[in-house]
Amino acid sequence: MDFLYTNLIYLIPVFGLIGIAVMAVKAAWVTKQDAGDGDMAQLAGYIADGAMAFLRAEWKVLSYFVIVAGILLAYSGTTVHTSSPVIAISFIVGAFLSAFAGFLGMRIATKANVRTTQAARTSLAQALKVSFTGGTVMGLGVAGLAIIGLGSLFIVFFTIYVKNTGGDVNGEAMAKALDVLAGFSLGAESIALFARVGGGIYTKAADVGADLVGKVEAGIPEDDVRNPATIADNVGDNVGDVAGMGADLFGSYVATMLATMVLGREIVSHDSFGGIAPVLLPMVIAGLGLIFSIVGASFVKIKSETSSVQKALNIGNWTSIILTAIATIFLVNWMLPNDTFHMLRDELPGGGLKEGSLEFTKTGVIYSIMVGLVVGTLMSMITEYYTAMGKRPVLGIIRQSSTGHATNIIAGLAVGMESTVLPILVLAAGIYGSYHFAGLYGVAIAAAGMMSTTAMQLAIDAFGPIADNAGGIAEMSRLPEEVRHRTDNLDAVGNTTAATGKGFAIASAALTSLALFAAFVGVAGIEHIDIYKADVLAGLFVGGMIPFIFSALCISAVGRAAMAMVEEVRRQFREIPGIMEYKAKPEYEKCVAISTKASIREMVAPGLIALISPIIVGFIFGPEVLGGMLAGVTVSGVLMGIFQSNAGGAWDNAKKSFEKGVEINGEMYYKKSEPHKASVTGDTVGDPFKDTSGPSMNILIKLMSIVSLVIAPHLHKDLNHSPRLQREIHIQSMVMPAKPVVKNKI
Amino acid sequence: MDFLYTNLIYLIPVFGLIGIAVMAVKAAWVTKQDAGDGDMAQLAGYIADGAMAFLRAEWKVLSYFVIVAGILLAYSGTTVHTSSPVIAISFIVGAFLSAFAGFLGMRIATKANVRTTQAARTSLAQALKVSFTGGTVMGLGVAGLAIIGLGSLFIVFFTIYVKNTGGDVNGEAMAKALDVLAGFSLGAESIALFARVGGGIYTKAADVGADLVGKVEAGIPEDDVRNPATIADNVGDNVGDVAGMGADLFGSYVATMLATMVLGREIVSHDSFGGIAPVLLPMVIAGLGLIFSIVGASFVKIKSETSSVQKALNIGNWTSIILTAIATIFLVNWMLPNDTFHMLRDELPGGGLKEGSLEFTKTGVIYSIMVGLVVGTLMSMITEYYTAMGKRPVLGIIRQSSTGHATNIIAGLAVGMESTVLPILVLAAGIYGSYHFAGLYGVAIAAAGMMSTTAMQLAIDAFGPIADNAGGIAEMSRLPEEVRHRTDNLDAVGNTTAATGKGFAIASAALTSLALFAAFVGVAGIEHIDIYKADVLAGLFVGGMIPFIFSALCISAVGRAAMAMVEEVRRQFREIPGIMEYKAKPEYEKCVAISTKASIREMVAPGLIALISPIIVGFIFGPEVLGGMLAGVTVSGVLMGIFQSNAGGAWDNAKKSFEKGVEINGEMYYKKSEPHKASVTGDTVGDPFKDTSGPSMNILIKLMSIVSLVIAPHLHKDLNHSPRLQREIHIQSMVMPAKPVVKNKI
Repeated sequence: MDFLYTNLIYLIPVFGLIGIAVMAVKAAWVTKQDAGDGDMAQLAGYIADGAMAFLRAEWKVLSYFVIVAGILLAYSGTTVHTSSPVIAISFIVGAFLSAFAGFLGMRIATKANVRTTQAARTSLAQALKVSFTGGTVMGLGVAGLAIIGLGSLFIVFFTIYVKNTGGDVNGEAMAKALDVLAGFSLGAESIALFARVGGGIYTKAADVGADLVGKVEAGIPEDDVRNPATIADNVGDNVGDVAGMGADLFGSYVATMLATMVLGREIVSHDSFGGIAPVLLPMVIAGLGLIFSIVGASFVKIKSETSSVQKALNIGNWTSIILTAIATIFLVNWMLPNDTFHMLRDELPGGGLKEGSLEFTKTGVIYSIMVGLVVGTLMSMITEYYTAMGKRPVLGIIRQSSTGHATNIIAGLAVGMESTVLPILVLAAGIYGSYHFAGLYGVAIAAAGMMSTTAMQLAIDAFGPIADNAGGIAEMSRLPEEVRHRTDNLDAVGNTTAATGKGFAIASAALTSLALFAAFVGVAGIEHIDIYKADVLAGLFVGGMIPFIFSALCISAVGRAAMAMVEEVRRQFREIPGIMEYKAKPEYEKCVAISTKASIREMVAPGLIALISPIIVGFIFGPEVLGGMLAGVTVSGVLMGIFQSNAGGAWDNAKKSFEKGVEINGEMYYKKSEPHKASVTGDTVGDPFKDTSGPSMNILIKLMSIVSLVIAPHLHKDLNHSPRLQREIHIQSMVMPAKPVVKNKI
Repeated sequence: MDFLYTNLIYLIPVFGLIGIAVMAVKAAWVTKQDAGDGDMAQLAGYIADGAMAFLRAEWKVLSYFVIVAGILLAYSGTTVHTSSPVIAISFIVGAFLSAFAGFLGMRIATKANVRTTQAARTSLAQALKVSFTGGTVMGLGVAGLAIIGLGSLFIVFFTIYVKNTGGDVNGEAMAKALDVLAGFSLGAESIALFARVGGGIYTKAADVGADLVGKVEAGIPEDDVRNPATIADNVGDNVGDVAGMGADLFGSYVATMLATMVLGREIVSHDSFGGIAPVLLPMVIAGLGLIFSIVGASFVKIKSETSSVQKALNIGNWTSIILTAIATIFLVNWMLPNDTFHMLRDELPGGGLKEGSLEFTKTGVIYSIMVGLVVGTLMSMITEYYTAMGKRPVLGIIRQSSTGHATNIIAGLAVGMESTVLPILVLAAGIYGSYHFAGLYGVAIAAAGMMSTTAMQLAIDAFGPIADNAGGIAEMSRLPEEVRHRTDNLDAVGNTTAATGKGFAIASAALTSLALFAAFVGVAGIEHIDIYKADVLAGLFVGGMIPFIFSALCISAVGRAAMAMVEEVRRQFREIPGIMEYKAKPEYEKCVAISTKASIREMVAPGLIALISPIIVGFIFGPEVLGGMLAGVTVSGVLMGIFQSNAGGAWDNAKKSFEKGVEINGEMYYKKSEPHKASVTGDTVGDPFKDTSGPSMNILIKLMSIVSLVIAPHLHKDLNHSPRLQREIHIQSMVMPAKPVVKNKI
């Protein structure tokens, strides 16, 4: 035990290394599967090339951004005592690892897709195995790299700033280590934003463009090899749903741990880990979650053609969640002492606690983690209800499709708006409950609990687009009906997991943002964020507006890029004779280039809004107004995220319902009927909602919180009264109680 | 002067009486205009009957509500010392006057419509005169009744609670008078909510239903006498755009004055009005605004067929605004003393002011009023930009209509979301500025300044639907082309004024809510609303969600009611032979009944959410969490209101642009082209957005604030430290400083 007490901190990256090792084995397995015959391999090659072309173009732009932002961070780090130029290194490592995680996931996805198609020629079981293993590689890569990166940097900074200086683990020394570490999260989340927005614009521009000309004008099926935009469409699945989603969850995962660590620093804990158990706890929970995700993933398998794929995924998912939950109970019991805890910021200068502040125990911490798990599960279930086929919301949209395009749209918008109610009540109860059990640390650790099985969640999420791509390759290669049937089966499950995954992602983003918000308040040294003050209220309004302009930019970018795609496809049909007779090959690369160029160009404006607005408001109006803005952006962003994602998901499944046939007022309607056409309109409107602007809300709210956290030390006006220094003052005042020395006054 | 000093309070209702007198003269003038021949009179009779049928059905339901709510208010008034059962009377008077104002406006509108049609047979100038005079009747009725009601009740309550008891005008006595007066505003705003939501559902169910079968299926023009839903559609213009809008602005007008009075009570002013100048000021400003609205209205006239109607309205509008602004400067200078002011809540118990509190002068008050006028004007201009034909936003929607229904919808949604940016920045700057100049009182008086010319605003707003109806009657009566041409001219201007009116309404609602919010904080006796606390933050989330569920209920109600209307119209076309050949008359009354029944039934759920949610949250979680909820609902409601109203307005004008023909990529497109069909879809989606859910947001946020203000005394936990009693304590402590006596401790 003594060895563990002393060395737990060094073991954290080991969890990540285990994840990466398993990932390598699984990636090797996927790679050595049969990649099919010449046609399939060629198509898969186009997709892989297109995906890499996008990544390269994206990285080129982002490398400029990282360099400029890194220099600014390094420079600003030298101007205040509380931060350090080292934060720039931290930032660059975070950005690099986030991009690398996306790259790993996408490379395996573009291998797994065609191998899944090939596997689907033999059996459903084998096709699931290949596609889900591909997803697992992505999940383990993201979680593994995150833990290695955050864990290693923490060791370095802890050693430099705390251990080597003999600094106080609850005071300024540790605060500095965590300030610098926040750069890692900032780097990860910045890349995530661009990846999510860029990827989202890419995939929907290609999808909408391909559908509008291919399906509607030329009357050829989806994923038809004659459609010049079809390769771009399939590339989009990879850059949006795989790389974008991976970067998003990488960011959430890191940000949650970081926020919990920042709040944990303020907890005086008489534990066996040198007093840093509350800081280490979120990382260890994440490590356990990674291990149990590996265990859970091994349960995802089916026996026969008629087995339920959904059930197999559910068993794997629940296995990892339940095992992690049980292990976490033991872990918290072991790591935390039996004392009561409180936050330093709640201490009064003269001793005692402020009115209304909270004391809690390790049992409270356990309860908070359970609250987080329950919130995540409920959010996923509610999302599924609002977007699933055969349930009231989707049935309502189907019914209203019978009176035309407009009523279909009205119904979908109403469903999206209505679908915010239960998630918000769950979230509000979750905030209330986790705070009740363990204060602000409880809110943060609840998010950490929810995110602990990120590897498994991401495996399930990434499996969907791989299956989708596999289906596309099957269609393009004109393989037998039964192959497409198997990939369709997988794809249908993938659509459900995509919806529940979005519910989970938004819940985690909301709790993460709140945790970051709480961390920000501490670091900025403010006591209240009083919306009764006119300027804070003005900040709340401006913050609330940002998700609206952000969404507007995203969806109009998709609209513009889709129109460019439409024109290019029309041109190719017109100018290249023989496409329709399979005699001439379309110029796929031109469509790929349009999506790539448009997405890279259009991701800049929304990205800059998210990055710069907190800086402007913080420095001009101060930390309290910035706090108001953060609250506004979080509330409005969560609402707009749920609204848009669910409306899009519901429209999508309303349209899909027509493929099997639906009954409206006693009559059956199928594909090509008038109500089906109305449902296609809804689906097309929903596309940018659910895959571009909706999921971008997650990153928007997290990124703005992290930017605020990073600049918080610079905004700090009154160091004397801040919890950042209270511990120093407290300790020093024990020595010379009459005259507390404050070394670092600005 | 001495006479004025003593009796100004009694002169306030006189302003209202002048307004009502002028209204009566104008109403008599409209009534004695020629109402046209038999056909026209018959159709107008149907419309008037339908409108009255709706009002009767609405009143029946609302009378139950008013009785139940009145009893509850009376009962609760007896349980706390700070309120009184008399509040129930105040509530009933407010409800009655609001309903009565709506009735007056609608009765004159249903007379002016057909008389405008008849006048349009002679000249545009005469048609404008009749329709605008009809609108003026509405405007003067609303403003006059509001001033009479509020002014008279204030005299009564001031006499009972303050004058007769010799109570302190800055303390508990005046607070009680204003608590009771808040019932008036609650009554007015409750009726407004139901009128707006019910009217909004009515008008759009009829409109969408009539269009879907008439225009799309049967191929007959809008307002064709053969369409069974056409009378319901024209009734809808009256119950939604006239009665609903009237009740809405009646509510805003009253609420703004009330909030300013509640905040004014806390200002110790050594003036010549017995210390109540800050309380009287908003009512006197409203009175002046009413007088100058009468003056401005007399400038609205044109000379020839080619004169600009818009210009005539603008001249009238600006005349009343500028005259009121100038008069207000003199008024404030005359009424307020040269001292510096501060709010009682900012005083420290031991003397001096709290840190960060504000002192201001009467010049600051004047500046704040000017800020309000500027904010109102800018909001109207921005709204016009985003919804006007020929400007970038509408042109973008037109262009995206060329690729189909879906891209039209995406473009409109993006325009709506983008259109929140500038209004929010203006509003935030307005809050910041008006607070800077005169603190919370400044925010409230800015709203009062903005609302001062409500009579004129409403005249312009109500003129639109009258002209619209006049056009409908011309079409139904198959009058000559030139008549319809003249009414179309008026209608087009009416569409612009409707859009700018909405911008004005949302700006006034936002500032009013903030003023009420500030008043609530004072009455509830809380010091902060700290969103950094977990429960307050949870309240913020829940509040932010309410506009989403409210909108979802409104627009899905329209969808459902429109479908019922579609089925009824289809049935009549099927079962009544000869309709199409003008041989048989459709059963108009059945369609009227469908809209009436649906709107009455569907207005209940959203209404109850607005009324009950603050009560539940306030009593279970306390005033601070309720404050968080109010902030959430205000921010989210303003955003959703702007988003929906502007998206709807832009879609509408994109569709209208096709009537004259639009150029897309070098080609001209007209009515019946594919892009035009896509634009009709957008317009239909926009209908409930811009006329049901969008404008309801205004009332939602105001009503929830007023409910909170009314229950605030009941939520008050700690009377000792409240600004409500501070003045008493202060006065008493001058007598016996050692032991302040608090009489009213719960």
